Amino acid sequence: MSSHSRDSWKVSSSIVSKRTSNPIRAIVDHIKVKPNPDKSMISLALGDPTLFGNFKIHQSCTDAVVKQIQSYKCNGYPPSTGYPHARKAVADKFSTPEAPLTTQDVILASGCSGALEMCIGVLCNEGDNILLPRPGFSLYQTCADSKGIQVRYYDLLPDKNWEMDLKQLESLVDERTAAVVMNNPSNPCGSVFRKQHLLDFLKVCERQHLPVIADEIYCDLVFSGNEFFPLASLTKTVPILSVGGLAKKYLVPGWRLGWIFIHDRNDIFATEVRDGLTSLSQLILGPNSVIQGALEEILHQTDKDFHDDTCTQLEANAKLSTDILSKVPGLKVIVPQGAMYVMISIKVEEFKDIPNDIVFTEKLLGEESVMCLPGSVFQCPNFIRIVFTSPPEILQDAYNRMAEFCARHHI
Amino acid sequence: MSSHSRDSWKVSSSIVSKRTSNPIRAIVDHIKVKPNPDKSMISLALGDPTLFGNFKIHQSCTDAVVKQIQSYKCNGYPPSTGYPHARKAVADKFSTPEAPLTTQDVILASGCSGALEMCIGVLCNEGDNILLPRPGFSLYQTCADSKGIQVRYYDLLPDKNWEMDLKQLESLVDERTAAVVMNNPSNPCGSVFRKQHLLDFLKVCERQHLPVIADEIYCDLVFSGNEFFPLASLTKTVPILSVGGLAKKYLVPGWRLGWIFIHDRNDIFATEVRDGLTSLSQLILGPNSVIQGALEEILHQTDKDFHDDTCTQLEANAKLSTDILSKVPGLKVIVPQGAMYVMISIKVEEFKDIPNDIVFTEKLLGEESVMCLPGSVFQCPNFIRIVFTSPPEILQDAYNRMAEFCARHHI
Repeated sequence: MSSHSRDSWKVSSSIVSKRTSNPIRAIVDHIKVKPNPDKSMISLALGDPTLFGNFKIHQSCTDAVVKQIQSYKCNGYPPSTGYPHARKAVADKFSTPEAPLTTQDVILASGCSGALEMCIGVLCNEGDNILLPRPGFSLYQTCADSKGIQVRYYDLLPDKNWEMDLKQLESLVDERTAAVVMNNPSNPCGSVFRKQHLLDFLKVCERQHLPVIADEIYCDLVFSGNEFFPLASLTKTVPILSVGGLAKKYLVPGWRLGWIFIHDRNDIFATEVRDGLTSLSQLILGPNSVIQGALEEILHQTDKDFHDDTCTQLEANAKLSTDILSKVPGLKVIVPQGAMYVMISIKVEEFKDIPNDIVFTEKLLGEESVMCLPGSVFQCPNFIRIVFTSPPEILQDAYNRMAEFCARHHI
Repeated sequence: MSSHSRDSWKVSSSIVSKRTSNPIRAIVDHIKVKPNPDKSMISLALGDPTLFGNFKIHQSCTDAVVKQIQSYKCNGYPPSTGYPHARKAVADKFSTPEAPLTTQDVILASGCSGALEMCIGVLCNEGDNILLPRPGFSLYQTCADSKGIQVRYYDLLPDKNWEMDLKQLESLVDERTAAVVMNNPSNPCGSVFRKQHLLDFLKVCERQHLPVIADEIYCDLVFSGNEFFPLASLTKTVPILSVGGLAKKYLVPGWRLGWIFIHDRNDIFATEVRDGLTSLSQLILGPNSVIQGALEEILHQTDKDFHDDTCTQLEANAKLSTDILSKVPGLKVIVPQGAMYVMISIKVEEFKDIPNDIVFTEKLLGEESVMCLPGSVFQCPNFIRIVFTSPPEILQDAYNRMAEFCARHHI
């Protein structure tokens, strides 16, 4: 137990704040290399589709928000779990015959991050452990570390389209395992799980009586030949908290409108977990009221063409990325099936002077002014992650530079 | 250490979620009385000025938001502490010669609640104690309980315009006291502290080397004859985290745009507390990006008349409340000096059948369909809190009913 000085000024930050750290920042902030001043900077690092203006929300959605703003009717406090009509609009949109949702099953949150924070917070105690995907979105770890929850990584297998190593996953479970986080479609992998794989995963959860937090923020962003299955639609028994939001599908990550779906048809979460989520929602009081007010129109009146167009563009960019980069000696592309990411294996043994992904990232930045994230930030060394939401001509330019870079450093 | 069942489905909610509770809900949800069906319902319970349309944000502000929405330029992720230009706009607006602020001293948060949550979270460890005002805003306790921080209440004195009992406050400090929360102008008291009282408070903090969290969300909402002094403008030595936001002064609590000011001219918080706040901001990723984008225009181009008009209306409502209710036998009004609240003492010994504030609240609701909050939810029994933001004719109606109610139950 620490004590606070009463006879001099000495103020420390809390243990919780000290253990709340972002692995991306911890690694990226140590990259001291400057971009090549003779080449324009291209960042393929940030998972934000809005940066270039080629992906943007449909005008019908912005019109819906403008209408709410000008009505002056959505400026007050919504209930901390969200306006009932907004929760109902989400429930109606995402309900399926296999996994029905009512207003009561939906909790709105300040972005999908806020939703994840609440889900991890309601299921896990300090000292528990939680199973996270490797490679995986770094916020899971940030959130678990912050709460003193032990992180145990289960592997995703690059040679099997990043499917989960279910045997290894199950071997990690013990009596302190509070939950498993599953992410589909995946950041950073760009993978989309097959139905049978999800069924096999659910079998493990059922055998181990393991509740699932399903991060489905990239739902429906899938490419031809792949299909997205909401995890909850494939089980009647495993209790699932699914999280999602407007961020990716509607291309507005800054709007901070996320949600939690409570899928609990066998009443295992029961009132306890529902009440716990409601309690936690009172700390921050939910997302922006104006966006909540517009949610029904956003979800139910956006032209389907808008989503199709987003997927078509993303798929074309994915194909461009695969086509160019898979021909580059020293790289191996794991072909993406959805989302907006591709993971690329760096065959370090084929390079003269690139021993790992961090050096690859640094030298690529210093020589070619192209920035991507080293796989190490996702617990996956000797890969890099590329975000392919930039316009095709920029991607082309970046990939050409990467090809030259690799040729230069190849054995 | 609890363990998780592996051979049957049994999922509990976390300890943290169980201890996160809202005292308002805990008491109000137990009021089972129904309003009188023969009288229209009037709620004076909710601290939300937007409910009736008589208080609303200035059109220049909504125009600024519409402009941002239609620009499609503020839909991506801002940095987790906020866009630099938005932080700078806040710093410029609230900087004073005595307490200067730069961009680096401002962190944006998801509402003032989010700001408070971060400030308490960065200064206090589980097992520490924190000093909170009694009566006081219930979220302080919710937040402290959630984090396992012991709450110690210092008294505000109704006979001294709700000034802090500084002697009692100081007597509560021990080696585990991590911070004191000060709220000025006050919810629920409607009080505004004199300059000398704030100086006396700062002397205690200096003597005890006690960092302050200053909740100044009602800044500038003060009535004639009173003046608001930002606490940080009155000290060069005591480190202060001040919190505020758009909610009250701009009449948009649902927009969830709050901020933290780091006042630390002697480098006591130093980088540690600043880094801690930045780390904590990464969990939720800050407030809505569109509102952030509009913040500069909202803060710097809103007509001063708008704020003056808000204060004039509030002051007229405060006077109406005081004029009528101070003549009601059995009640004692503590005259409000600012904000949008008045606390009224219930002289229970003068009533036949009203032993406390909760019964008063229940019977008033059941007989007169007027709802206000019992002081118990603010740790202040035998008071009631009235929110006087309803239009004058509604207040008049409610107060007339209260007068009849009191006359009926008076000895």
